[in-house]
Amino acid sequence: MKPIQVGLLGIGTVGSGVFNVLRRNQEEIRRRAGRGIEIAMVADLDVERARSVAGSSVQVVNDARAVIANPDIDIVVELIGGYGVAKALVLEAIAAGKHVVTANKALLAVHGTEIFAAASAKGVMVAFEAAVAGGIPIIKALREGLTANRIQWIAGIINGTTNFILSEMRDKGLDFDVVLKEAQRLGYAEADPTFDIEGVDAAHKATIMSAIAFGIPVQFDKAYVEGITKLAAADIRYAEQLGYRIKLLGIAKRREGGVELRVHPSLVPSKRLIANVEGAMNAVVVQADAVGTTLYYGKGAGSEPTASAVIADLVDIARLAAADPEHRVPHLAFQPNTLDEARDALPVLPMAEVVTSYYLRLRVADEAGVLAKVTGLLAGAGISIDAVLQREADEVGGEGATHTDLIILTHDTREGTMNEAIAQMQALPTVLGPIVRVRKEELN
Amino acid sequence: MKPIQVGLLGIGTVGSGVFNVLRRNQEEIRRRAGRGIEIAMVADLDVERARSVAGSSVQVVNDARAVIANPDIDIVVELIGGYGVAKALVLEAIAAGKHVVTANKALLAVHGTEIFAAASAKGVMVAFEAAVAGGIPIIKALREGLTANRIQWIAGIINGTTNFILSEMRDKGLDFDVVLKEAQRLGYAEADPTFDIEGVDAAHKATIMSAIAFGIPVQFDKAYVEGITKLAAADIRYAEQLGYRIKLLGIAKRREGGVELRVHPSLVPSKRLIANVEGAMNAVVVQADAVGTTLYYGKGAGSEPTASAVIADLVDIARLAAADPEHRVPHLAFQPNTLDEARDALPVLPMAEVVTSYYLRLRVADEAGVLAKVTGLLAGAGISIDAVLQREADEVGGEGATHTDLIILTHDTREGTMNEAIAQMQALPTVLGPIVRVRKEELN
Repeated sequence: MKPIQVGLLGIGTVGSGVFNVLRRNQEEIRRRAGRGIEIAMVADLDVERARSVAGSSVQVVNDARAVIANPDIDIVVELIGGYGVAKALVLEAIAAGKHVVTANKALLAVHGTEIFAAASAKGVMVAFEAAVAGGIPIIKALREGLTANRIQWIAGIINGTTNFILSEMRDKGLDFDVVLKEAQRLGYAEADPTFDIEGVDAAHKATIMSAIAFGIPVQFDKAYVEGITKLAAADIRYAEQLGYRIKLLGIAKRREGGVELRVHPSLVPSKRLIANVEGAMNAVVVQADAVGTTLYYGKGAGSEPTASAVIADLVDIARLAAADPEHRVPHLAFQPNTLDEARDALPVLPMAEVVTSYYLRLRVADEAGVLAKVTGLLAGAGISIDAVLQREADEVGGEGATHTDLIILTHDTREGTMNEAIAQMQALPTVLGPIVRVRKEELN
Repeated sequence: MKPIQVGLLGIGTVGSGVFNVLRRNQEEIRRRAGRGIEIAMVADLDVERARSVAGSSVQVVNDARAVIANPDIDIVVELIGGYGVAKALVLEAIAAGKHVVTANKALLAVHGTEIFAAASAKGVMVAFEAAVAGGIPIIKALREGLTANRIQWIAGIINGTTNFILSEMRDKGLDFDVVLKEAQRLGYAEADPTFDIEGVDAAHKATIMSAIAFGIPVQFDKAYVEGITKLAAADIRYAEQLGYRIKLLGIAKRREGGVELRVHPSLVPSKRLIANVEGAMNAVVVQADAVGTTLYYGKGAGSEPTASAVIADLVDIARLAAADPEHRVPHLAFQPNTLDEARDALPVLPMAEVVTSYYLRLRVADEAGVLAKVTGLLAGAGISIDAVLQREADEVGGEGATHTDLIILTHDTREGTMNEAIAQMQALPTVLGPIVRVRKEELN
């Protein structure tokens, strides 16, 4: 069988990885796929650099549309990123009857419904293993490995930059700003790190996983997104003393009557495997009714780990491109004609309806009766307390300090109820600074 | 499309799980597969019990051959186990043109070459996700998720019984025999636990993974197999003091000129995720050239976890049964006509050729010069020492004791060289009991 012909749009970090891995492992990949995979054409604005990566046997152009228009190309790999030109090109490639492989989580989380519909109508595949958790084959695991299961929840460390920062904050006892600068210097954080540190990138990935897990459409606009910029070294230290680590988790959880879809820092019991995922590594925990808990761990970014996922998609497509569309795995795991009904039955719940437990840190005046007042207020709101940690004033503020930290862990509570309770506690004259709230996930 | 018709051979623990999960999640599974999956017929020697599980809508027989002979059955699920009748039935099902799903690692590790060849010749699929690590979709990950990679090594906790026993030995400081009895009482170990505790079950699974990882045939007869029965609580304690846990690992490693295939207790650095996999859980670490290290964790046995894997295979087959065979994933990941050549290029190395590092425990007389003698002997053999732990005599043997334990960690050494060195040390008059040797894997 003739090698399948691939066109690459963008040959930066990931594109170079795809090129290098395909070249290095071509024999091994052909022995698996039963068919060669050949990059025949590359489009990149920087034609010179592209040529230096791709070599002289590959046609290099600066116009992505020339790749899409090439009738010899079977699969277009979109590695440009973002919502803008990438969206137009993906839709044009589909319209031209090309299969598409993309690592673009932002595009799929926001415009997935439109893109998958276009692909289904045209009878082509859009594959995106590289869009979530880089080299970890989590899309395949969720979509094919766990088909027997009703998935209950997914919780993942799916952004390497923030996990690196949190690991460093814990290891070195440093505050967020300091570690962010170090991460930028080391290349673990971008010059503009907003999408990572504010949780947007993780929310894109959690959105895609929620669709595949529950059979609902991608609904990024309904996701709750909170980053790690407000975490202090003190919170990480207190959490540690209570037996927890703080991780930025992307969570998708099935509840009676709806789905929780949220990204925020979370306390996780230190003894859980996922709490011990350090540095820029990723991991996803899946809880499902038949299999129970499974976990998938690996590199979530980088040139060759991401290329590993892109090429796995190329092989899948190479195998199925000549078969009829009805034998393919649906883009979002479930048959597309069932998604809308599922969305109505299982809407994404507003954040106020989320139920979880909480870590609260209150800076309070070091005087009698403060704890009684605060706990009385929580009791009045029906919020039950799991543990309290009160520091001595001099531990927190130094010799002669007049304030101290009060740490409270609660049992499960509705977020809306907690919001009101926090507002009331904040109004107490003995509560001195803004109350810090970090959600807590037992993940059992 | 008409539901695909499944016949079950054996409806014990796993068979009941398949039945229950298919019934409970039938809507969800149909929404994914695009096609129903129906158990139409069950064969079990205990017809009464089978009927009580399967209900009245399913035909229950006591003759497995009646299922195979039924022209309406598309897929035969073999859940009998063992090499005997199961082998005959699987081959008969293939000859009758049925696809086969099996959880039978013993059968595939020993007779896989014959079975897969028969299936290829007949144009049917033999799927076996449930044969390795139960509910963890590790076969799919290796075979499809990591297709881009040259896999370097796999190391797995792939036997829940032994991991439960080792976890208990560590937690409670008890010796093997005591914990085995407890495990049998709790149902974590069988009445005859030989296959588990002697490492045979893990070796079956490691053999299957080695084939898929390296593109070689299954060669169980070449595997080195060592169980956990000789481990003492003291070894687990000493390992802990040196920063290691002891786990029974199934290892398949690519080396220059060959493959290591071995199962034995191994020291693993405590900080590795896999060292923290406790109780009856399974985990597999895969090191591959593009993606780096990935890890897959979950339940390795049990009714519904295993059923989860069986049903995932049923869905895969339901999707591809009507497509032509060339679009299928090869049974052992690589095109079958390439396996023999790969075996010649990459033979399974004899154990004496394995290279690893070692933990040695010597019971020695508490007198001057013993350490010098032992280390001199190792130096003479060209074995370099990484760490030494010498206990005070009274810590080991109590007040007034005349013997003590000498623990040595070595750097990488050929197993054959180590065998000779151990024989020489054993011959020293100051070495009092049999030397304990546990291999050490850094897994980085």
